[in-house]
This record gives sequence, structure tokens and C-alpha cells, in this order.
Amino acid sequence: MDTTAGTPDGVSRRGFLTRVGAVGGATALYGTMEALGLIASPAHAAEEAGDFVPLRPGDLPAAANGTKVAILGAGTAGLTIAYELGKAGYDCHVLEARDRPGGRAKTIRRGDRLTDTDGVTQTCTFDDEHYYNPGPSRIPSHHLTIDYCRELGVAIEPMVNANAQGFYFHENTPTVNYGPLASTTVTHRQAKADVYGYISELLVAAADQGALDTVLSADDVDRLVELANSLGGLSGGRYAGNNRRGYSEPPGAGDQPGTIAGPPPSVSAILQSQLGTRFAFEFGFDQAMMMWQPVGGMDRISAALASAIGGRRRITYDAPVTRIDNTADGVRVTYRSNGRTRVLDADFCVVTIPPMVLKAIPTNFSTGTKDALAVPVGANSGRMGIQFKRRFWEEDFDIYGGVTHTNLDVSGIYYPSTGYFSRKGVLVGYYSGSYTNLPVPERETRALMQGAKIHGDVYHREFDNSFSVAWPKEPYSLGAWVSWPGGRGAAYQHLLQADGNTYFAGDHLSYYTAWQNGAFLSARKVVSDLHARVAATAS
Amino acid sequence: MDTTAGTPDGVSRRGFLTRVGAVGGATALYGTMEALGLIASPAHAAEEAGDFVPLRPGDLPAAANGTKVAILGAGTAGLTIAYELGKAGYDCHVLEARDRPGGRAKTIRRGDRLTDTDGVTQTCTFDDEHYYNPGPSRIPSHHLTIDYCRELGVAIEPMVNANAQGFYFHENTPTVNYGPLASTTVTHRQAKADVYGYISELLVAAADQGALDTVLSADDVDRLVELANSLGGLSGGRYAGNNRRGYSEPPGAGDQPGTIAGPPPSVSAILQSQLGTRFAFEFGFDQAMMMWQPVGGMDRISAALASAIGGRRRITYDAPVTRIDNTADGVRVTYRSNGRTRVLDADFCVVTIPPMVLKAIPTNFSTGTKDALAVPVGANSGRMGIQFKRRFWEEDFDIYGGVTHTNLDVSGIYYPSTGYFSRKGVLVGYYSGSYTNLPVPERETRALMQGAKIHGDVYHREFDNSFSVAWPKEPYSLGAWVSWPGGRGAAYQHLLQADGNTYFAGDHLSYYTAWQNGAFLSARKVVSDLHARVAATAS
Repeated sequence: MDTTAGTPDGVSRRGFLTRVGAVGGATALYGTMEALGLIASPAHAAEEAGDFVPLRPGDLPAAANGTKVAILGAGTAGLTIAYELGKAGYDCHVLEARDRPGGRAKTIRRGDRLTDTDGVTQTCTFDDEHYYNPGPSRIPSHHLTIDYCRELGVAIEPMVNANAQGFYFHENTPTVNYGPLASTTVTHRQAKADVYGYISELLVAAADQGALDTVLSADDVDRLVELANSLGGLSGGRYAGNNRRGYSEPPGAGDQPGTIAGPPPSVSAILQSQLGTRFAFEFGFDQAMMMWQPVGGMDRISAALASAIGGRRRITYDAPVTRIDNTADGVRVTYRSNGRTRVLDADFCVVTIPPMVLKAIPTNFSTGTKDALAVPVGANSGRMGIQFKRRFWEEDFDIYGGVTHTNLDVSGIYYPSTGYFSRKGVLVGYYSGSYTNLPVPERETRALMQGAKIHGDVYHREFDNSFSVAWPKEPYSLGAWVSWPGGRGAAYQHLLQADGNTYFAGDHLSYYTAWQNGAFLSARKVVSDLHARVAATAS
Repeated sequence: MDTTAGTPDGVSRRGFLTRVGAVGGATALYGTMEALGLIASPAHAAEEAGDFVPLRPGDLPAAANGTKVAILGAGTAGLTIAYELGKAGYDCHVLEARDRPGGRAKTIRRGDRLTDTDGVTQTCTFDDEHYYNPGPSRIPSHHLTIDYCRELGVAIEPMVNANAQGFYFHENTPTVNYGPLASTTVTHRQAKADVYGYISELLVAAADQGALDTVLSADDVDRLVELANSLGGLSGGRYAGNNRRGYSEPPGAGDQPGTIAGPPPSVSAILQSQLGTRFAFEFGFDQAMMMWQPVGGMDRISAALASAIGGRRRITYDAPVTRIDNTADGVRVTYRSNGRTRVLDADFCVVTIPPMVLKAIPTNFSTGTKDALAVPVGANSGRMGIQFKRRFWEEDFDIYGGVTHTNLDVSGIYYPSTGYFSRKGVLVGYYSGSYTNLPVPERETRALMQGAKIHGDVYHREFDNSFSVAWPKEPYSLGAWVSWPGGRGAAYQHLLQADGNTYFAGDHLSYYTAWQNGAFLSARKVVSDLHARVAATAS
């Protein structure tokens, strides 16, 4: 490992510090911060993330005062561009086809109406205090989204992405037999005890046979055996269950030491179940706990951004764009508003409309741009929020937030990470593309049938109502996120560049597709690119 | 596994259901609930926990109306006894030596004063909105504590007991050399990637050598290899790091796919570090996430209990007990209040005063009881809350809640699981008995020195003030919890029985020592015992 300090030219402080932190740990990090004379403040930390230097008043050259930017789409990317350009005094205006900001970063609440591309309208009938996020729903601690929440004053609370009381559930398929544990609900707690127990036992067995002597020193083999005994909760090198699994009779007062649930299934049953292949999810760089959500719904972020840029003074809602033209010295955007066709002229335009939607809008973009916009496709996914009359997952199953992972077509069931102890609650009944092409009532019927495999008849008995979002059928999204067939290739590269006076932004133009972090990153890149051009031209 | 259903005589519904759930999964559980005609409601679920049948109005036989119970100690156990007996109309009165309810389940806030057994007084100078819990601080989802929070209307929020951004830190000791990673902060994220990576690689290596062929079938060996590849994030059976470790240059917009932090330390360095032996903590039945805390501080529970039983109408504070006497038909408790000696006569008494304190109070208890009370000893532990002027752990380290585990004498550093984004914050700087015998100022000096090994000079620079609780020096506790030398033996058994008309209760008389769950369990046992006796006598 290279632990040499020093700030290479052209590397921002944050990037440099991140690298030092990675190789030398926090001790090296703080030492370096000291040496560089850096004293981080909240705003400072947010600013440095992503090597982005935010604009400040006065950054816009006097010669360019009044530079006007039309921003198409009031999703996370579009709002952020208006917010960051606005810091230097750019004159931004945002056009949004929907009647609200946020794009896919929305929250479904009572009274929300959604008409899909089939013309089918749903109206949400959740109780007032309940809601769910059908789009982005998780914020890892290291994402820019957290920094923006801090900067904008959006309160956060934990989003429970892993819970020992959640279940794993594998149903046999035509091609895979999961053995004795097929179609059985197994708590994460129990699955981990058993998987780590048995693989630890196997490690000890291998070590005892000398099978690791060629790759490990004798001392390291001893350390491995010690580690295995700890990790697996072994007794004399063997796994026979332990209290990590839970109790059949819990410890109590007086004479009740408790009875550990057991015995565990056999090692073969555990391996056949393939439950252990689910564990890596929790190690994911962007999935590991802790995970966060805004208090009150994901749309609190876009609401705060919209407010910060000036609200309706800077944003026109219900304004679908009908045409975009680069002109000799700017951009002309044509849109519909209040039944009339209107025009917005600007010096620059940033388009955050998803390519699947944008490609159908007439433009005078170059052929290269039009070809590039035709490449990406909308990913098929969606989520159903199901309101239940009673939070049976909390009351009957001790599940407060978290996820049940399955190989059913619902994929996962996500228990709400808010409103604990409320009477009712809304959980996410599926996160899947399998329901997109079902009629809305059939989605509900099927989701309840699948959920009942996990929770039993209470899933039917306590059912109240549901609302489902199928992103490919959401008119101004046409996909849950953007997928680049064959990977980020020439089309992706092309759209990173401006077409005349028009820039493109969105999470799809980052390596954080489908995360708000990607929208923030892309927005900041375009802000930097656009400002660099203006600064160079005006000086 | 035995999946036979059927309700044996004498087994409560909850106990029975727990067992069915354990062997058959939730599907069996719900089926059985259906068969038994059980429809759980919030109150119902709480009531069933622990096989306890709560008393109801009318349960107290008419002949026993007005039965008076003196309860000594307004900690969790004492308050719960008054609360549960009160449901049937028992006339309870609680004497508490301190000026507040809650016992060890307290919360330290601005203005709190604490005079220890050395006569040293601390006054808390935290800012108004900040606090810490020096006693119980964690509530697992399956504890009775959660049920009482629901029943009493105490809001809960996640207590972050595990966070991928927290650190592990092992400093060399005179007897152990931790190798190249000694005295290095390693994120949980990175440690897990490396440990699971290498042990998975070793499993694959052992499988490849045929070392597991005697214990596993060929199919199971294949499944194990598949599991290992997933669990370890291996490439071709080898571990060479992966993005679970984090990035040295994070993925960004445009052309920034990111650079994974690496390469990982060698397998020998990872084994020498012994970081992997820390992982089992998170699998603990009572430590696995999700974990909870009351919004506003742990003392919200005792405040709600005290309020529910009638407040000062039922509780006398600042009333240290000076003598307890069983009488012919009841109990006489002598105590001090407002400078005078007073007497409380009752039909029964329940003593929740810790044995270390109780044994010094004159009584006419039997010799057997006095001998039993002399056996348990107070455990040595304590916690320091440190207020910092800036939440550098959030702003500089992306640590929002969670724990840094060390082999330093601080044991762990616990980041606050509330007040995210606030300017200041209070973290727990140690959870340890090593500071008990240090003078208060030296505790602070040492805790800061140790914390700076993890966080660097910012730990000194942003320090604001501190407050420490050393439980063995807390006058009415004399220990962090009760320890039974040699285990729960004859003394424990003796105290489960009444001495005359006096009962004993507290977490120390349960298999949940040091957990509020134990206090609730013990309280409910004594409520049942006492009521059974009253009911039998009165009928």
C-alpha cells in the first residue's frame, strides 16, 4: 500500500483526503487534514463531496450577468442545477411536465392521483399519516443526498434496510429445489446463525485436516480456528446451534433460563436452502446499514430544493415540453401551459428529461445526439404500497422496519421505517417488474397472495387498500431508471457533452444510476461544465 | 424437527406460539393462530409476552379490597409492579430514595447533579437538546420493553447498534501483537469485506482440495463453493478486494466509474488483526439490529410509568428506606422524608432495592434472606457522555450513529442515534469499568486521549464538556448491575421466594440481568405470585 502523503496537482481536497483515508485509516486522515490546515465545517464538508466547488455570489462574470438557463425537468437533477447555478446568480427557470417537483423521487399519499400510459387512474386512499416512496427510498450515509439534506434542513431518520427479524423465503422453482427449508420463513437471525455456524465448522474441519497448511502459516491457522469459533459460535469446533438463533422459550424471571430454538437444520439443508447467498446484500457499498430516509417522505428533499430556488417563481408546473431548438445564441424551448403553447428563450438549456421520453420530443439536436438518445431503455420495475388495518408485522412478528427477501415475484417485502406503534401502516408489497403488465386490481390480488406465503392469512385479513406504481407506465418517466444496453458506451459518452447550447443531466449520466446521488453528481458536473464555458467566454 | 401442533396443558398461548413459530416458521405460526381463533391486538400481544396474564379490574377478590402494597424503589421493576397491581385495584405506594423515577434507567441532561459515594458532585452542562443514557440504552425488538413502550405511548426510534462506517481498532498489548493493522482504524465495512473475502477463499481452497468430501456430498460442496463466492465477493474463487470495502475515488458523474479502495491487506494481516472476532457481537440475540431507544431519552419509560400509576399520589421521592420489618399481618417500612422518620404500613412489600444497597438496611428478614442478600456483588461499569462542539463523526467520517469497537480501556465509542445534523452532539466516550476509580477530571483526560487514537486531534479540538457515571459509586445503585459470583445459585433461588410478606424483584432476579426486560419480567412474576397468594387467601 502506498501511504505517501502529498497533494498531486489537479486533485481536489476531498478526493485526495478520501484516498489518504482509505489507505491509512482515519488516523492518517486527520493528520493530513491537520497538515493541510483544513478545518471542516458542515457546509464545507458538503461542498467538498464529489470534488465539486459550488458557485458563490460573484462567480458569474459581470459580462455574463443575467445569463439565462432553461432547465427541463424538476426532478432531483433539474432542481439541483437551478439551486447550484442560482448560488452564483444565474437566471434559471425550470419547466416541469408534472404538477409537482421531484420526478421519480416522489412519495405516495392520500389523494395522490396517477394516470398511467394505459389511461388507468389510481387515487391513493391511504390514511393521512401513512405513505410510501415508490422511487428512491434509501440514502446511504456517504451519498451527496445526505449532504443536501443537511444543507437544506431536511431531517432524516433511519431507513431499516436490514433487520434480524426479517425473513428469507425460497420457494422451489421448476429448476431449483431448495430442500427441506423450501417455502419456509426463516429469520435473518436464524439463517445467519446456521450459515456462519456451519461454514465455521467446515473451516475448522479443513484446518484440522491440514488442508490450509499450504496457504497459511501454523500461527495463522490457529488464528483462523479462533476466528471460526467466534464467528460460528461453535462448541469444540462443532456447530450445534446457539442462542443467536433465538429461543423456543425465552429467558425469563426466576427459574426460566430459556430454551434455545433448535436443533438447527442439517448442514445439507442449510446449503440446499441457499439462504446464505442473500447475506452479501447487506455488505453492499450502497446497501450496508446505516441507511436513511427523510422524515415525512422522500419528496421532502425536492420540496426543500424547490423552495430554496424560489418555488413557482422559478418553476412552471404542468408544462410539458413540446420542442427544443438550439438557436444561434441560445436555446428556444416550446411547451404547453394552461392549454396554450408557450416559448421559453434562454442562453443555455439543461435537459434532465429521461431519454426514453426526450427522444419523442421534436428537437433540432444533431443526428449524433438523436441517435444517442435512442439507445438507453427504461428499466422495468415498480412498487406497491399496501395499507393494512393493523401493523401485524410489528405486533405479531416483532418486525419493526426491514426487509423480507424472497425468490417470489414480489422480490422483497419492505416494512415501514416510520410510524412505529401506529394502528395502521403501509408496507411495500413488491419491488419488482413482474407486476407492470398486470391490470391494477390483479397486481393487488397477486401481491396479497404472495405476501400471505410469508405472513399467513393475516395478510388478507388486515388488508386495507393499495396503490401501485409501474414505472414503465408512468408517462413522464417511462422506466424505473435508465438502462444502457451493452453498458455505458458511445451513446453515454455522447450525452456527456453539450449539443450546442443544450446540456444533458440526470442520474443516468452518472455511475449512480437509479440513485438520487447520481442525479446530484450529474447536476454538479453540468453546473461546473456550463459555468466553465460561461466564464471562459465572458472573460 | 417436530412440527406437530397441539396445545399442551399448562402452556400459555404465547409460549406455545413461540415454539410453533420456531420450528415451523411463520406459516405454521399463523396457521396455528388461526386454528386457535386468536386475533392479536396491540394490547393483547403485549399482555401475552412472557406468559403473563395481566390483572384486570375485578381480579382482586372483594374480600381483599384495599390490599395495600409498599413498593421500595421506583426503578423499572418497582414502577411496573405498581402499574400492573394497580390494574386490579391494589393500593400501591412506592418509596424512592432518589428525587426521580427510573433508577439506573436514567438520562443525563443539562442541570443534572450527581454526588457519588466519594462525595464528589458533577453537574451536567450539556446543551439543552443533548443527552445520553448512562444505564440501559438499547431495546431489542423482542423485549417486553417494546411492548410497554407501545402500551404507555412512549415513541421509539432506532438505536444504531451497528454501522458499516463505525471502526474497529486493536492496539497491541504486552501479550498480543495484532500485526500490520495494529493501531489502525478499519471501518466495519472494510473489515467485513476482507474477513468474509478471505475465509470464503479458504473454503473454496479446501473444497478444491477435496478436504470437505468426507463431510459433504458432491452437490453440497458445489453449493458451498457458490455460497463462498457470493459471501466473499470472490473472483474465480480468489479474494482480491471488491467495492464492499469502499472506494478510494468514489463513482461519480460522467467518466468517473470510481476506484475501489485497495488492494486489501494480506490474509495473514487480516487474521493477525483479529478484527473478525468482533463480528459475532452483531449476531447476538439481544444485540442484533434492529435496536431501539425511546425518543427523548431512556427515562421517558419510567416517566410514563410514573405518570400512569398516578405520579406523586403513589410515589414518594427523596424517601430512603431505613428499616423493613415483616409484621404479623403485613409489613412496616420505615423511611426518611423531609428530615423526619416516617412509617409506611402495608399488607405486602416488594423490595426492588439492589441487594448491595439492601443488605445495609436493617430488617427482621430471616437469616437465610440476609445471607442471600450478602451474596451478589455490584458489577463495575460506567459511561461518560462527551459533548462536542461539532458532530465531526457525522461531518468528517460519515458516521451517523453506531459503535466503534476497540480493545482500548474505553471499550467502545457510541455515536448518538438522535439529533442528526445538529451542531453539537453527545457521544458515549467509554462504556467501561476502567474509569470508575479515576478522579472525575482524569476520566475526561483519559477518555479524550483514547478517543483521539480513533478520531485524531479533532477529538480534542471540538471537545466541549463531559459527564460520567461510575455505577459502583452511585449511592443507591452501588453497581452497574448485579453479579452472582459462581452463577445463579442458592442465594438467587432464595430471593425468588417471599420472606414473610415481603417479595423481592428486579432484573437481578431474572435471566435478563442489566436489561430493563429483566426488570419487567421479574415485576410480572412477583405480581403473579403476590396476586395468587392474595386470591387464594381471600377466596
